[in-house]
Amino acid sequence: MRTGAWLLGARGSVAVTSLIGALAIRAGLTGPTGCVLESPALRERVRPGIGDLVFGGHDVTSVPLEKKAAELAGAGVVPAALALAVKDDLAAVEQQVRPLPAAATQAATAAAIAADLDRFRRRNDLDRVVVVNVSTTEPVPSPHPAHGSLDALRAALSEPGAVLPPSSLAAYAALTAGCPYIDFTPSTGARLPALDALAREHGLPYAGHDGKTGETLVKSVLAPMFAQRNLKVRTWSGVNLLGGGDGANLVRPGANAAKSASKQRVLPETLGYLPQGETRIDYLEDLGDFKTAWDLVTFEGFLGTGMRMEFTWHGCDSALAAPLVLDLVRLTAAAHRAGRAGPLPELAFFFKDPLGEVPHGLAEQWRVLCDLVTALDPEHTP
Amino acid sequence: MRTGAWLLGARGSVAVTSLIGALAIRAGLTGPTGCVLESPALRERVRPGIGDLVFGGHDVTSVPLEKKAAELAGAGVVPAALALAVKDDLAAVEQQVRPLPAAATQAATAAAIAADLDRFRRRNDLDRVVVVNVSTTEPVPSPHPAHGSLDALRAALSEPGAVLPPSSLAAYAALTAGCPYIDFTPSTGARLPALDALAREHGLPYAGHDGKTGETLVKSVLAPMFAQRNLKVRTWSGVNLLGGGDGANLVRPGANAAKSASKQRVLPETLGYLPQGETRIDYLEDLGDFKTAWDLVTFEGFLGTGMRMEFTWHGCDSALAAPLVLDLVRLTAAAHRAGRAGPLPELAFFFKDPLGEVPHGLAEQWRVLCDLVTALDPEHTP
Amino acid sequence: MRTGAWLLGARGSVAVTSLIGALAIRAGLTGPTGCVLESPALRERVRPGIGDLVFGGHDVTSVPLEKKAAELAGAGVVPAALALAVKDDLAAVEQQVRPLPAAATQAATAAAIAADLDRFRRRNDLDRVVVVNVSTTEPVPSPHPAHGSLDALRAALSEPGAVLPPSSLAAYAALTAGCPYIDFTPSTGARLPALDALAREHGLPYAGHDGKTGETLVKSVLAPMFAQRNLKVRTWSGVNLLGGGDGANLVRPGANAAKSASKQRVLPETLGYLPQGETRIDYLEDLGDFKTAWDLVTFEGFLGTGMRMEFTWHGCDSALAAPLVLDLVRLTAAAHRAGRAGPLPELAFFFKDPLGEVPHGLAEQWRVLCDLVTALDPEHTP
Amino acid sequence: MRTGAWLLGARGSVAVTSLIGALAIRAGLTGPTGCVLESPALRERVRPGIGDLVFGGHDVTSVPLEKKAAELAGAGVVPAALALAVKDDLAAVEQQVRPLPAAATQAATAAAIAADLDRFRRRNDLDRVVVVNVSTTEPVPSPHPAHGSLDALRAALSEPGAVLPPSSLAAYAALTAGCPYIDFTPSTGARLPALDALAREHGLPYAGHDGKTGETLVKSVLAPMFAQRNLKVRTWSGVNLLGGGDGANLVRPGANAAKSASKQRVLPETLGYLPQGETRIDYLEDLGDFKTAWDLVTFEGFLGTGMRMEFTWHGCDSALAAPLVLDLVRLTAAAHRAGRAGPLPELAFFFKDPLGEVPHGLAEQWRVLCDLVTALDPEHTP
Repeated sequence: MRTGAWLLGARGSVAVTSLIGALAIRAGLTGPTGCVLESPALRERVRPGIGDLVFGGHDVTSVPLEKKAAELAGAGVVPAALALAVKDDLAAVEQQVRPLPAAATQAATAAAIAADLDRFRRRNDLDRVVVVNVSTTEPVPSPHPAHGSLDALRAALSEPGAVLPPSSLAAYAALTAGCPYIDFTPSTGARLPALDALAREHGLPYAGHDGKTGETLVKSVLAPMFAQRNLKVRTWSGVNLLGGGDGANLVRPGANAAKSASKQRVLPETLGYLPQGETRIDYLEDLGDFKTAWDLVTFEGFLGTGMRMEFTWHGCDSALAAPLVLDLVRLTAAAHRAGRAGPLPELAFFFKDPLGEVPHGLAEQWRVLCDLVTALDPEHTP
Repeated sequence: MRTGAWLLGARGSVAVTSLIGALAIRAGLTGPTGCVLESPALRERVRPGIGDLVFGGHDVTSVPLEKKAAELAGAGVVPAALALAVKDDLAAVEQQVRPLPAAATQAATAAAIAADLDRFRRRNDLDRVVVVNVSTTEPVPSPHPAHGSLDALRAALSEPGAVLPPSSLAAYAALTAGCPYIDFTPSTGARLPALDALAREHGLPYAGHDGKTGETLVKSVLAPMFAQRNLKVRTWSGVNLLGGGDGANLVRPGANAAKSASKQRVLPETLGYLPQGETRIDYLEDLGDFKTAWDLVTFEGFLGTGMRMEFTWHGCDSALAAPLVLDLVRLTAAAHRAGRAGPLPELAFFFKDPLGEVPHGLAEQWRVLCDLVTALDPEHTP
Repeated sequence: MRTGAWLLGARGSVAVTSLIGALAIRAGLTGPTGCVLESPALRERVRPGIGDLVFGGHDVTSVPLEKKAAELAGAGVVPAALALAVKDDLAAVEQQVRPLPAAATQAATAAAIAADLDRFRRRNDLDRVVVVNVSTTEPVPSPHPAHGSLDALRAALSEPGAVLPPSSLAAYAALTAGCPYIDFTPSTGARLPALDALAREHGLPYAGHDGKTGETLVKSVLAPMFAQRNLKVRTWSGVNLLGGGDGANLVRPGANAAKSASKQRVLPETLGYLPQGETRIDYLEDLGDFKTAWDLVTFEGFLGTGMRMEFTWHGCDSALAAPLVLDLVRLTAAAHRAGRAGPLPELAFFFKDPLGEVPHGLAEQWRVLCDLVTALDPEHTP
Repeated sequence: MRTGAWLLGARGSVAVTSLIGALAIRAGLTGPTGCVLESPALRERVRPGIGDLVFGGHDVTSVPLEKKAAELAGAGVVPAALALAVKDDLAAVEQQVRPLPAAATQAATAAAIAADLDRFRRRNDLDRVVVVNVSTTEPVPSPHPAHGSLDALRAALSEPGAVLPPSSLAAYAALTAGCPYIDFTPSTGARLPALDALAREHGLPYAGHDGKTGETLVKSVLAPMFAQRNLKVRTWSGVNLLGGGDGANLVRPGANAAKSASKQRVLPETLGYLPQGETRIDYLEDLGDFKTAWDLVTFEGFLGTGMRMEFTWHGCDSALAAPLVLDLVRLTAAAHRAGRAGPLPELAFFFKDPLGEVPHGLAEQWRVLCDLVTALDPEHTP
């Protein structure tokens, strides 16, 4: 049951928060708050457990994990005492983090990534390795004919030039190496027909997209409430003010567009129509890892009476994302063991922009998740 | 299928808004926004329809319905044009509204109420009459031994003095007259063992308590969200600022206590624990029929990181309540027709303080409601 | 003391709200809430009074004032009863509203505008006419060499083509006709060296820019508070959601840029530095004449401790602007009578983007205004 | 110019934050953010400077300053690195903190307090000692005839029993020992005729009451804004949610009443009338030293149009109060040197419930403060 968790972007805020948390929980230094699979309803239902995970990963930067951990402690994302307490364990993970390969062709790069994954599995005697993308959001890529066919893709990858965006190349490499793939970002990842075919060919599940950690989470419970009460939402506007590395990147128009689109999808899917209004993302370096989102909803009740609701969400994105990364690795590993291949729409609970035709209301997503947990491990039904 | 809707508090804001709305919808002058049974998921599934309802009621005041309608239009609760357009139909309802009887003993008062109900049914050739309490909230009553036994209650009611609070006396009279009873307020209503026995004896359903129209509605979707994400809620504080008749009454400590208790119940029921914090209700005459509620939720995420959420709800209470009153009359009438007796816990979706052992998360309450609709009228399953 | 108030954009929301208000106040139907010159501190200090004003104006549209009044009543901007009560007086103003002239050259257009002003003054036997621009915001115009010199401007206006944006052409015409000019919008108006020279040549005062009605008003008291307490503002972000005619126009990038720039100026002027953050303006048709602004301020206190403040402003822009238009006409008329020529920086209290080197904190602007009132009419010192 | 700052409640959050800050600023480890006398407008205008202060104090508890400093660092009130850096200097202050004396009669207790003050002055060779009360808020005391006359008070203090509440006894002792007295809390302090007489007899100034650190600060700029714009405030409601030691105490009804009354005074003083609404204070242990206040203001504009504003303030009370304590000690010392005796109404800028007939708008208070600074040290006028 030893399971590898291979983090793309292993030196980033989300990854390092996940690492510190998993190591601290394992050492009994803190509880699993925020881990969905450790909530009373699902506790001890999914194997592997947090203690069964072995971590490694790729990154383009070389900032030591310990340095990043100190930064996160300074920013109030993780307690300084915990970061200190897991220092030695973190140093052990450091040995498993490698620079992201870059070769002359994308085929060669993918082969180098796959080789790293294979080496990680063998050296650590792992049953399986799940690859999870927690690196910076990419701009929306241009379409390419090779995205639609696995054969065409294989051919194109051997040519010079970039056929796939980095997240999809990583997905290609992971699937080639027999590893399930999760995309926690809005990037393309495995979401191409050619890669879906590859996943099915290798009998591998994949999951995504874009971890649902704040404003969209709240939307996914409020929008069904308005729908069920037959209240007509006239406008729904949001602004997200965020700092940190993610924010700096989102100021780039391409990435911002990818993210904003992902955040709006919940409204038409749950209301049945798209109200006026937009979701804006602004970068403010001084906000650090904490994000403030404000939403204004104006709605119409009986006989057209106008009413309104506002909410402000002040959350730490890395701290909200990190436990979900652990949940997703565990669930995807369990799905692989149970023989699932292709997309895992049952994980919609975790994502802003889930794969497949799925419910977008959180409550229904929760039920689907609970059913998946039961299906994956029928003996542990409570 | 002609169904009587007998409103206790027929001259109050909620009742008159319900009346104007039902008359205007029937006349095709407006749509059924806010009516749950007219949402896409449930439309045309429950009989009687809004057009099948015949209205009457009791009230202690004698303000003409037309005058109250003008007040509501002036306050922005109903459009002035609609209030004007249904003037004649409202005058017809006026003929069916009677002063609340008051006799020497509670037994005699109950008999007079029952006689009014019976007369209403016969004169209008109704299949059944549903009684719904939308009058002012009572203080929590003192316990009385006769509340526990129907025989003791019958004996006690013939003595001088008040054994039952007004809402329970009305429930007693309604059940005696063969009418299902709904309590839309936090008052006691049918919620006494003696009255439960009476309902079962007569084969009558009853429902309640305290229409869920604003802050508690939002809580009932947010609290499950925190629970499902395994985020620990540290504090949940709320303040409700409201004017209008309801507000003036709630400033009386007894009624305020009844209401505040009702509003807090959702948290322990959905979170599994009671976070620190209170829900306050303050009366501000100048706010009129619009209510502003503000809630602050502080919570703890992964590794103990502190986060927070605030929301403000600015709603018109009467406009939020009125369509639910129509839904409840229709559902309770359908349940009676289907042979249901005793409490209707499946209507928890509508209430802050629902009867029975029921889920308190809105999403589960919605599912239970949808199942009830199917059970009551299996032919109309979509 | 009979004073003309000539409204550019006389059929718009701000103008018609001003008209209804002035007529209703004069008729004793309502009080002067929102009129600064009617506050306890300044009451009866400035002549002309509201009752001394005679209204006329230009507009490019031909929507009757009565129709616009009905729209404003329907939208909740003015009470329907008041709009009805001043119907006849409004019909009399209708006679004084003319289509905005448009001739072959800008010189000819200006002459036609001036002729309208002159005719209005003579027919109504007015001591003076004050022109006030309350029309739609223009995009920021391209610079033109003739803007810098009155002689060059006069020459250029006789050529075909547009040298001046509409607001500046109107200012030119007004000043030529001997009328003081106020710009209540962010448009260029009299804010060009050539027009300043013209005003001084004719001994005429002018004022502007951009009425301070909501979010910026609040900023102009909060920013000095942070400065005086020596608290360091790290970020100040705002979003303005607005419907109505103004909103639809502001969605055009040029106008939006003009407005956003105007709204930010208060921060560096009062804090002494520009914190991170932007002010966004989004148009949401369904919000109508009511605007919601949300601002987030993050600041640093003693020893660097991070703190935050949020505010939401939900105001009716036309209702906030209209009484200030009346105040400004009265003050500018009094300044003209007192012999003032050139810009009136003492009116900074009313503007987001005031003319001249002036304080930007509201409290100092208030003092300067009070001093001006005393200077203009020394006999009425309290 | 060596000035003693004697803190009543020297081991509390406000005092220890002041101490850490003063020591860190003096050591050049941090800047004076939050210190009003260090803002650009007032910098280097008032002597003594922060570096001239020598600290001592009384407390009823014996928690070591270092332990309290660690608690404050853990709670995010002061940076852990700063608390560590000033450890040795704090240990030196520890030597100057003494247990609050308690003798058989209040006269004897006062004599013991005065002896401590005298010893502190002599041992440290101080020009003067300013006593500042930053201890826990007392309940409002019962009136006593001896409060009105110094002779009667002197007689009564020698009897057994408590004539004065602790803050007033401390003020009595301070004034007797020749020390100016500041009350930073809502407690009674020097605010009794008998103590005013004592202050004048000894030629000593005194100041107070109740440091203005959050919600009331914001009110003191917003309320004048509404008044100056002649907007009618209908309701103003506030709720304060706070943890920490101050919060726990305020849950006691007497102290809560004292605080709430103090917080409301600004409205009638600046608006000229008292709008509907109350200010509530609720204690939530889990909020720690950070306080969240939410205020709702509903107001009426032109022609009665209803509008609204909300604000949320999320501040760290100790971090907001601590720099003001340093400012007040410096200003009161300078006033004493300049020969001032009796109340110092010019310090209203710092207080919720200032002494004397003073302006309540922050902007006017700021001007009065600037004038005082100039008056105290005319040579340093900029």
